[in-house]
Amino acid sequence: MAAEWIWYPGEFEIKQLNELGGKRYLREIPQFPVWPSFGLYPSVKYGKEFTLSKPTLLRIKADGEFSLEVDRAGHFLPCTDGTLALEAGKHSLNVHVWNTEGKIPCLYVDSNEMWTDDSWYCTLLDGEFIHVDAGGFFDKDVSPNDFRLALQRRDAVSVEERAEGLLYDFGRETFGFIAVEKGNGKGKLKLYLGESKEEALDFAECELIDEIDLAAGQTQTRFTRAFRYITVVKEDGADYEQIYENFEYREEKLQASFSCSDEKTEKIWKVALDTFHLNTREFFYDGIKRDRWVWCGDAYQSGFFNRYAFWDEEVWKRTIVALSGKGVPTRHINTIVDYTLYWLMGFYDYYRSTGDKGFAQRWYTRFCNWLKFILDRTDEDGYLVHSPDDWVFIDWSDCLTKDCERYSFLQMLLCAALRQASEIATVVGQQADAEKYLSMSGSLKAKINADFWMEEKGAYAYGIKDGKSDGRIFRQQNVMAVFTGIADEGQSKRILQSVLKNDAIPKITTPYMRFYEFTVLCGLGETAYVMEEIRKYFGGMLDIGATSFWEDYDSEMQGIEHYAMYDRKYGKSLCHAWGATPLWIIGRYVLGVDTDGVNKQVTIRPWKDFPHDVTAEVPAFGKLIHIEKKANVWTILSPVNGVVCDGERNYALVAGEKITVSL
Amino acid sequence: MAAEWIWYPGEFEIKQLNELGGKRYLREIPQFPVWPSFGLYPSVKYGKEFTLSKPTLLRIKADGEFSLEVDRAGHFLPCTDGTLALEAGKHSLNVHVWNTEGKIPCLYVDSNEMWTDDSWYCTLLDGEFIHVDAGGFFDKDVSPNDFRLALQRRDAVSVEERAEGLLYDFGRETFGFIAVEKGNGKGKLKLYLGESKEEALDFAECELIDEIDLAAGQTQTRFTRAFRYITVVKEDGADYEQIYENFEYREEKLQASFSCSDEKTEKIWKVALDTFHLNTREFFYDGIKRDRWVWCGDAYQSGFFNRYAFWDEEVWKRTIVALSGKGVPTRHINTIVDYTLYWLMGFYDYYRSTGDKGFAQRWYTRFCNWLKFILDRTDEDGYLVHSPDDWVFIDWSDCLTKDCERYSFLQMLLCAALRQASEIATVVGQQADAEKYLSMSGSLKAKINADFWMEEKGAYAYGIKDGKSDGRIFRQQNVMAVFTGIADEGQSKRILQSVLKNDAIPKITTPYMRFYEFTVLCGLGETAYVMEEIRKYFGGMLDIGATSFWEDYDSEMQGIEHYAMYDRKYGKSLCHAWGATPLWIIGRYVLGVDTDGVNKQVTIRPWKDFPHDVTAEVPAFGKLIHIEKKANVWTILSPVNGVVCDGERNYALVAGEKITVSL
Repeated sequence: MAAEWIWYPGEFEIKQLNELGGKRYLREIPQFPVWPSFGLYPSVKYGKEFTLSKPTLLRIKADGEFSLEVDRAGHFLPCTDGTLALEAGKHSLNVHVWNTEGKIPCLYVDSNEMWTDDSWYCTLLDGEFIHVDAGGFFDKDVSPNDFRLALQRRDAVSVEERAEGLLYDFGRETFGFIAVEKGNGKGKLKLYLGESKEEALDFAECELIDEIDLAAGQTQTRFTRAFRYITVVKEDGADYEQIYENFEYREEKLQASFSCSDEKTEKIWKVALDTFHLNTREFFYDGIKRDRWVWCGDAYQSGFFNRYAFWDEEVWKRTIVALSGKGVPTRHINTIVDYTLYWLMGFYDYYRSTGDKGFAQRWYTRFCNWLKFILDRTDEDGYLVHSPDDWVFIDWSDCLTKDCERYSFLQMLLCAALRQASEIATVVGQQADAEKYLSMSGSLKAKINADFWMEEKGAYAYGIKDGKSDGRIFRQQNVMAVFTGIADEGQSKRILQSVLKNDAIPKITTPYMRFYEFTVLCGLGETAYVMEEIRKYFGGMLDIGATSFWEDYDSEMQGIEHYAMYDRKYGKSLCHAWGATPLWIIGRYVLGVDTDGVNKQVTIRPWKDFPHDVTAEVPAFGKLIHIEKKANVWTILSPVNGVVCDGERNYALVAGEKITVSL
Repeated sequence: MAAEWIWYPGEFEIKQLNELGGKRYLREIPQFPVWPSFGLYPSVKYGKEFTLSKPTLLRIKADGEFSLEVDRAGHFLPCTDGTLALEAGKHSLNVHVWNTEGKIPCLYVDSNEMWTDDSWYCTLLDGEFIHVDAGGFFDKDVSPNDFRLALQRRDAVSVEERAEGLLYDFGRETFGFIAVEKGNGKGKLKLYLGESKEEALDFAECELIDEIDLAAGQTQTRFTRAFRYITVVKEDGADYEQIYENFEYREEKLQASFSCSDEKTEKIWKVALDTFHLNTREFFYDGIKRDRWVWCGDAYQSGFFNRYAFWDEEVWKRTIVALSGKGVPTRHINTIVDYTLYWLMGFYDYYRSTGDKGFAQRWYTRFCNWLKFILDRTDEDGYLVHSPDDWVFIDWSDCLTKDCERYSFLQMLLCAALRQASEIATVVGQQADAEKYLSMSGSLKAKINADFWMEEKGAYAYGIKDGKSDGRIFRQQNVMAVFTGIADEGQSKRILQSVLKNDAIPKITTPYMRFYEFTVLCGLGETAYVMEEIRKYFGGMLDIGATSFWEDYDSEMQGIEHYAMYDRKYGKSLCHAWGATPLWIIGRYVLGVDTDGVNKQVTIRPWKDFPHDVTAEVPAFGKLIHIEKKANVWTILSPVNGVVCDGERNYALVAGEKITVSL
């Protein structure tokens, strides 16, 4: 074991979130988060009891000033040179670290016999002692306050001299600092950025502008930026030899792979992976150009994609913790009612997928705080009530009017969240809670079916308006009814016909909601239809030059129409995490891999009718399952035990033993 | 009106408290607060609607980055040079300020027609919009983050060359930076500080040491320090022309005065004023050497002294707000059960004395949070329960053992706090709360009398031990019974004889508890006895050279015995706010001034038997009442209306009209 930096749980997430919060700009205007941000605790006391076999010199480092209380309460020893000499024998050490300058008061103690790690306790001096957070990925000189993502030089693939300036094309969507080589130390370089060429050349309306002030000694932009194209304009005598990018990225320890005899399917998977990797950073972002924020609706889905891309538990947990904020909740997560519910569901999804009981235990109080926040907002029917200030999002769609007293969609999420909360409560040994939540979920399910299910139409209504069901049928709430299990098998089959395959019901245009739609369709045996849709929808973006998947896509649009959103010419994000849905659909429903974290097992149920050959690696619990398909023969080598199902029979999957099944 | 800096309410207090928290040292070891400290909110949005009569240029300054949202939601305008040009007409302006570096994201907007002041609203983006805090005492270039107390050079009154080094005597207790004039830029000056000469010469055991590193370019100590004497040792070739003090102090707008034909009484009053002024800084400190913290028990009494010294509402309010911390309480204020109760009582005392309904309204939620925190810790009898981790202080006294299940002292404070909470609730229009608290207070009073009053002994018992009253009689709980009105007139008179004038009951040795004892005695007509005690007790300290009043005083002690406390040779604070009790006793019971903030009136009930002549000024609502007494003739000129009582008749006191009464 080696020494690690330690800190008060959750503070690293708050720090990273605060750093991120200052980086979003719309041209020269900063766009700060529109929900509460939190300060760091300035005062943390760390403690540990230990025994030394011989006299030992401890080396102590902290971000902040600190005091050492040794062996007994009130027995403070000076520490002017960062060391403390202790005799052999039993000891206790408390280190009180103090930092009021916006940094985490974190600690690093090292010696041959004892060091900081996750066995230490800490307190805010509030009477509670809890286990610290510890980070193995920092070394002594890189504290959690100095954490940075990795950097790699990337050069443009082409440069074009134009009337507007020099137009650089980096060949693909990317994210990093824009840097200059051999600047002449005069004037400024004005940078006009674009995810599209049109945007980078449209100085008046491009979303991101930046500069490198050569005269001031700047060699790269202050912040990272998303772009594919940059137009550079030299001002006041500025000149340089080269413009390049310091590409910033999360170094993943593990990465899925997918090659396929069908080029388009393979390309879709790869661009989905790129899209997701660009958005997997300190946290799961929504999009790298816009909003470069952590939105819970997006992050919830990223949890699913992550399992089929990197199995990166660090970023996953960090995102969940960051979204939960600090202290007693005062407002819905991201101000959106549905997003608070997705947070609860995402907490469960993390647990279910990884089986990480420690995490559930550690954050159970916060989980309960959010559940209480939700339950404090329910009516006598158990329905979630939204206030006029709350944003009910559901989906970007003009048909989803916001004029109901209750939305079936939200109640369905609540019902699922309660059922999942019951499981979480069981895991952490809170049986009374577990029973209460399960019973509430059951009653709510019955109530939703009674109030919203329209037997004659085979669909759920959208909401309650003027005191009664509005009877409006949209895909969104019906997809969610199947996804959350509100609809039973019979209801789900009817929804498939009367809603999902009914062209009279308005189409879903966001990859966000298509995630749920595709998932539900695959679950209902419509994988062939879904894969066809994916080829059309995601393939459609590729056909018009996308190198990452977008926030929204409508094949009817033409040219730069595609780039507009929110009444802005280039308002749309062209690299949006929720565009990574193909990772999930291919991993979960084509390759058929499902990980059960609670039992640490994998179930593989390949899609028999997949017409192409495949060589793939799919993560499971931080390792890779190798899958090869040639014609109808599937060869699987898994690092964990489990089962392969062909729909009729189950074949035992033994860790490390190759299995071949003809389907 | 002029522009003022504005910020989110309470953040200035948190910032100052955090700055203070890093400054206490015991020799080279920092002593951080042993209760929770809080981070600043990094993200605050300010807003205002206004009308301009002509085109206007706004000048905008913030501590942090900011964005401007003008006239409609989402309409952001750039602001690169700190100005914003607006047309004549109606406008709205939102300024979102962001600071993640441990500074308050505060704002300053100025123009001819509109500016930042307390009419602005702010939000943490949590859906709540509240009035900002605004500070008129800062100018544009001094934001709340740059706030500093005043400085004034003070020179030593003598210097002595000794074997140990150069011993400087500043002639009185003081507090400031130790500075050097014409240092030679070599080596270091080691400083050994003492509130007493013995301490400054005892290098091994003095409480405060410091240094000025001349070689590193330092010209004064990093932090302010309390001292009267300094021994300076030159190291590594260090030399200089002069050592002096940059005395740091709160500039008071108003100050009471007191001259008396009895020199000792006058001296006691003046030293009490000095003692209190030295401790009245960003907040009311407990002591300037130790702990230089904000302890609520001390601060509660400081509220009383303040009314008779400076009527400094700023420091008073700031102390109350700072002590209340942030968010939902997790631990007793200063970890002490009694101190949480004093906080509630102090909140009331501020309101009662000033009539400041706005303050009560503004902080009512926080008041309720603390009251709830307390009420969550009561048993079926309504008694406050302490947990093993809670510190029950009551008083420094060996006889007050901490072995009871319930302490009558705490229940008495709770009873008073509830009665006062009822008044606060009434003021802010929460009538249901008001009735509830009043009823709880009434029941508790009856219960306390039933359980603790011993009719046969004429005294209250100390606690409940092994399920029943322990029958132990100490001054502390009996004094508090009278102070809080638990004891009725008859009971109070019996307590006077059986406890307060009974030498068999252990003496009170802290000025802290003598405050309550003297107050109660004066209320029972024993002002002559109290003044005699004050001359003995406080006069006793003066007789052995005190220039400020101490944390504790026992006339039986000899020499440096006086300086010891907490098992440390110089552990005692020789300048402790609670030593300022004479200000209160003389102002309230000798001069007889009582201010009624709710009705903005003053009642003056001079002590007829005061044997000396007096010329005095006593604050009332930020102005001064002039009082002159020669023989039995009292001449009073008050800036506010009220009444003068001689015990039999009442004389109307008309603002600005001199009244002469022979008593």
